[in-house]
Amino acid sequence: MKESEILASIREMAGARSEKAEVSIGDDAALYNLGTEGSLLTIDSFYEGVHFSLDYCSYKDVGWKAVSAAISDIAAMGGEPECAMLSIGFPLSPSEEELRSLIGGVLESLDSSHCELVGGDVCRSPSGLLLTVAVTGTPPESGPVLRSGAKSGDLIGVTGTLGDSAAGLYVLQAGKTSPYVDYAGLKSAHLRPQPRITAGGVLSEAGVSAMEDLSDGLFFDAGHICEMSGLGCLIDSSALPMSEELKSLADVSGADPYQWALFGGEDYELVFTASPELFEKAARLLASNGVGASRVGEMKPDGFGVRVLDEHGDIFEAHGGFEHFME
Amino acid sequence: MKESEILASIREMAGARSEKAEVSIGDDAALYNLGTEGSLLTIDSFYEGVHFSLDYCSYKDVGWKAVSAAISDIAAMGGEPECAMLSIGFPLSPSEEELRSLIGGVLESLDSSHCELVGGDVCRSPSGLLLTVAVTGTPPESGPVLRSGAKSGDLIGVTGTLGDSAAGLYVLQAGKTSPYVDYAGLKSAHLRPQPRITAGGVLSEAGVSAMEDLSDGLFFDAGHICEMSGLGCLIDSSALPMSEELKSLADVSGADPYQWALFGGEDYELVFTASPELFEKAARLLASNGVGASRVGEMKPDGFGVRVLDEHGDIFEAHGGFEHFME
Repeated sequence: MKESEILASIREMAGARSEKAEVSIGDDAALYNLGTEGSLLTIDSFYEGVHFSLDYCSYKDVGWKAVSAAISDIAAMGGEPECAMLSIGFPLSPSEEELRSLIGGVLESLDSSHCELVGGDVCRSPSGLLLTVAVTGTPPESGPVLRSGAKSGDLIGVTGTLGDSAAGLYVLQAGKTSPYVDYAGLKSAHLRPQPRITAGGVLSEAGVSAMEDLSDGLFFDAGHICEMSGLGCLIDSSALPMSEELKSLADVSGADPYQWALFGGEDYELVFTASPELFEKAARLLASNGVGASRVGEMKPDGFGVRVLDEHGDIFEAHGGFEHFME
Repeated sequence: MKESEILASIREMAGARSEKAEVSIGDDAALYNLGTEGSLLTIDSFYEGVHFSLDYCSYKDVGWKAVSAAISDIAAMGGEPECAMLSIGFPLSPSEEELRSLIGGVLESLDSSHCELVGGDVCRSPSGLLLTVAVTGTPPESGPVLRSGAKSGDLIGVTGTLGDSAAGLYVLQAGKTSPYVDYAGLKSAHLRPQPRITAGGVLSEAGVSAMEDLSDGLFFDAGHICEMSGLGCLIDSSALPMSEELKSLADVSGADPYQWALFGGEDYELVFTASPELFEKAARLLASNGVGASRVGEMKPDGFGVRVLDEHGDIFEAHGGFEHFME
């Protein structure tokens, strides 16, 4: 497809604009009526060969996940997404089927989060399929939940189960001829993560002290909260919520499920901190919204570091975080 | 540098946040108080090997230009930039000098446009240095100037001179051992374009009917206005404003200056349309703000196509536009 055809297809697929989008796709910039209480803004890139491979992701998966990862940052502040802009770099001119699949995934993810595509940019990529998504959102009435608000003694909670995305990647990378052909839930957790918008709103309303989405893995993301709050934390491995599929795959494959749950990224669940009293209330509110929550650790004073009580009762300390540039 | 060091450096270099940025770099998303009259939103990518080469661009040039190109889209609506988010993909871990140079260019360009960096994303790139910039802005009081508002009979104007960026690229690509070692103005036009924010505001206030920034080249960008307005146009080659440096380089090198002025991209000047009466007023207002303007053509009815009256008095018609995906 030519660039003009690509743009025309995207415009047609995106459909009618909402009343808030006074100017949408097709001009130099979009004009959008954001809320008056300040706007949440985030940007996230998703590159072939770094974040995904087309060996096991369809174009539709790629579109879905690039958008969901960006929206997850809005959910992590307790906010609701409003509108999105998308920049795509194609290494070669895409076929119409590839483009429709990619944009279909983008729009499905946006629709499921009640978010609107208002603009973008298409160009040639030097290598691989490159997506960057910028999303705006409205903060919760009580203001966004930051990473910096945790207190020593707060409990650490997570929504859902941990490590499913990393385990799903393990299954996908093993390929279709591997013994691991089922595990649909794990594969879906990796390919089609669902941002926790409702849970983020509920946790914000409950008044949790800090929150972040799980993109790098619990150990690393809890480390971000520690860093921004000037505290340490102890994570209890035995409390990490794991899905039956993940446990089954670990049994069959001999892989370590704790590695997935602790260090696996891209679950896009939420990690939050709250005082013990508030924690119970938050967990009840989540449950009444159909979201499971688990207590996985406790915030500790500064200098404690980020430590893990492992499944054998030993405490180990690790440093650093997910690192794009290993030295 | 490690990822955490990169992020810490960027945060430190970006300095104190403004009152409008309630939450800035370092959390899942930024919280920014945008205006209440709707917000302009744009996104623009700038990839090594596609949009630039480090053979002739410094890291500082790259940072400057990536930001300026995105801000130019806000200027093209008559708006003023407010805040920006930046996603960077590094192929290898950058040295501290490279990072400081890149972010220095980003911040210099933002400062010169009174725009604030509020967030971003850093990761590994599969190939080359990759930048994507998203910018929000406030629209002018009378509403943004769209591409779709031109009327048949409107005159077509441009700010500044045309083709300097393309001629500058010619000089830069010829290298330091070429006969073309001077031409500082042309090189600067290519490496350090200045978005036309003031001119965009003046033209919006004057009430011009359509406007766009010159990123693909006059011929192609005027074509966008034609397409969105459902019209054709005739561009008069003899009227194209050219700098003395460009004419001198054309003389010395034997290159065709009209090719640069008509088809060269990345000037980031503005092209606009206005009725003949309004055109004079707009040009006077621009002049009183120190910006030159030239009449370069006229809008024609639909079906006329995008035609050029060349320097020999012949009319030629060309189709298409700048095309990232040549077939």
